Amino acid sequence: MSGILRRSWRPSLSWARSASRLTPRILCTHVGAGSGGRSSGEVLRSPPEDIPYTVKGLKHISIAVPDLATAAEHYRCVLGAQVSAPVDQLEEGVKVVYVKLPNVAIELLHPVEASSTVAKFLEKNPSGGIHHLCFAVDDLNSASRYIEDLGVERMKNDHLLNQQQPALNLHPKDTMGVHVQLQQAN
Amino acid sequence: MSGILRRSWRPSLSWARSASRLTPRILCTHVGAGSGGRSSGEVLRSPPEDIPYTVKGLKHISIAVPDLATAAEHYRCVLGAQVSAPVDQLEEGVKVVYVKLPNVAIELLHPVEASSTVAKFLEKNPSGGIHHLCFAVDDLNSASRYIEDLGVERMKNDHLLNQQQPALNLHPKDTMGVHVQLQQAN
Repeated sequence: MSGILRRSWRPSLSWARSASRLTPRILCTHVGAGSGGRSSGEVLRSPPEDIPYTVKGLKHISIAVPDLATAAEHYRCVLGAQVSAPVDQLEEGVKVVYVKLPNVAIELLHPVEASSTVAKFLEKNPSGGIHHLCFAVDDLNSASRYIEDLGVERMKNDHLLNQQQPALNLHPKDTMGVHVQLQQAN
Repeated sequence: MSGILRRSWRPSLSWARSASRLTPRILCTHVGAGSGGRSSGEVLRSPPEDIPYTVKGLKHISIAVPDLATAAEHYRCVLGAQVSAPVDQLEEGVKVVYVKLPNVAIELLHPVEASSTVAKFLEKNPSGGIHHLCFAVDDLNSASRYIEDLGVERMKNDHLLNQQQPALNLHPKDTMGVHVQLQQAN
């Protein structure tokens, strides 16, 4: 970090309005950007050192599917994955098939309640699609406070999702159209 | 496998037409399903033993974004990731920011050519979204033949994508709404 002027910072979220849409702008005004801090093509810029939590990695990819048996057979027969039998997750109004690939866990979600978020997702995406990416963090409470300070919007039904496993659900409008979920790492 | 009757099999793809959509049905008629072969809640069903390739794992998640700088800052400042500077991938008509998280690689894609698949994706999804999941396989040629036999449709512009790095691009209508890409493992 030597040679890089640092100052106190506060990430801020503002909005650039275009004719057709709102574009979120999350601006790190942080000058020093961890080790390196440059942006040449070869150098990775590190995250700000002040983030009070660490993302440990991708926990799972959740995919909403209109037909759970077909989806399970697809992942078993085309992608060569191990798949579970359907498991009820009644608190979320879905059945889940767990798909095990060498370095990634996939959850295939099918709604059993019309009020579930997955049912609503399938109304908009009847062929199915990626519902959310879930990342594990080492300190979910710190992440919650930080993200609230940052002004990133959370899903309206955040408290409804994963009652057994608390989670932050960031609104896709603030996360480039991707529903990003954060869960406490095991 | 003892005690499980096996017979020759051929995966087949048929279609169940509903009022609102076509639902792909990929049916493994394979009786023995690798080790286990049962479908109780606790047991993972293994893939058919006859698949002539192995999926080594998730290679990357590609996310189309309307604003590359904002997206990069989001992944750096909210998810604490290392991010690269934008890199041209002119053969695909995009600029890419590589995002490095502990166990997953993410590619943020922004179009520089209106004819690119990513530009067309953003026309339909102006806020951005997950463009495709890329899995690494140990034998892409075998995968190609097998998937063709299976009848899974490939993207029309398959040959245009990843000219430097050959890839199979499975059509989302046959993969539960998810654009699945297969690439040769390194």
